[in-house]
Amino acid sequence: MDKKKEIPDIIVARLPLYLRALNILREKGNTTNSKELGEFLGFSAAQIRKDLSQFGEFGKQGTGYNIEFLSRQIETILNIDDDWKMILVGCGNIGHAIMNYSGFSRNRFHIVAAVDSNPELVGKTVNDVIGIRSIDDLQQIIQTEGIQIAMLTVPAAEAQKMAEKLVEYGIKGILSYAPVLLNLPDDIQIEYIDPVLSLQHITYYLK
Amino acid sequence: MDKKKEIPDIIVARLPLYLRALNILREKGNTTNSKELGEFLGFSAAQIRKDLSQFGEFGKQGTGYNIEFLSRQIETILNIDDDWKMILVGCGNIGHAIMNYSGFSRNRFHIVAAVDSNPELVGKTVNDVIGIRSIDDLQQIIQTEGIQIAMLTVPAAEAQKMAEKLVEYGIKGILSYAPVLLNLPDDIQIEYIDPVLSLQHITYYLK
Repeated sequence: MDKKKEIPDIIVARLPLYLRALNILREKGNTTNSKELGEFLGFSAAQIRKDLSQFGEFGKQGTGYNIEFLSRQIETILNIDDDWKMILVGCGNIGHAIMNYSGFSRNRFHIVAAVDSNPELVGKTVNDVIGIRSIDDLQQIIQTEGIQIAMLTVPAAEAQKMAEKLVEYGIKGILSYAPVLLNLPDDIQIEYIDPVLSLQHITYYLK
Repeated sequence: MDKKKEIPDIIVARLPLYLRALNILREKGNTTNSKELGEFLGFSAAQIRKDLSQFGEFGKQGTGYNIEFLSRQIETILNIDDDWKMILVGCGNIGHAIMNYSGFSRNRFHIVAAVDSNPELVGKTVNDVIGIRSIDDLQQIIQTEGIQIAMLTVPAAEAQKMAEKLVEYGIKGILSYAPVLLNLPDDIQIEYIDPVLSLQHITYYLK
């Protein structure tokens, strides 16, 4: 079975949430169940069982899930049982916030390089670790380091062109902070961080 | 019909994407159709038609959708045909990036106040407009300004407690940048901006 085709993406998108919930529930004990997980996440117990059953048998009727085991399984499914290298493209306000955030490396996502087109930023060191390099070095950095994931924080008007370059240089997944939809080949994984979309979702339920 | 109950949230979540796509397609003409919208967004034409049919009849067989009309309708459905006031709670790196981002006000979401608990930040002005105020003024600001939406950018360890205070003071929707799941009453709308979750979604498809 080609899992990449068979499992609906909407279920895949929920697995990181499950993992986060398990990390918190772990403090209370060694096991959990679909009811507790569901209450924690705001999904029904049936939804939880249905989601997880897509990937295999993780629990037993009556005894629930072993938290440690289920966490390791989900990490393996998501390919996050190993470290990932990332490059940050764009070192403005958002880029700086990203470089100063320790949550990425805590979760095995390591920013190994950051580039910007502004010569005034090149050479600057952020957070004692990341030295900003010239955008001209982009291809060389990606290929030398074997980087597959890029965080894109360039202005909206430059995002599409820069994303195309990243793909040309070998990037397979892009986390984009630019408020535009990127048009890239189907095999490139794109996720958007866009607070306006989230706010527009919230307001549907307000008033 | 209570639309808040009847329409699946997953469809509501796609409406902001439709709106963004329509804003771009508008440059090319006055009308579009489910095929073009679907290609643009990476959904099937059938999915687009099914989603939009939940809210009413927006297009005619054979002639497609009038972009201007459909945009206005979606804005009305999402309650974004008017301005919203927001308060920013936490003015660290992410908070500063948010205050410097013009995309919120361009989309009628206005940060009318920002608060922080650090006395060294209080009184500071960011982006010529937003003066950071003391966290002690939180309740008074929310109630005087009649603010319903908060952006929460405090450290993870403080997020739950702060979110409870926000709800107590009258906040109805929270956009949280803290990497923790908030446990709040069901009628509070919460959205999370969490790049680690997005990266863990990307890696499922890599390797």
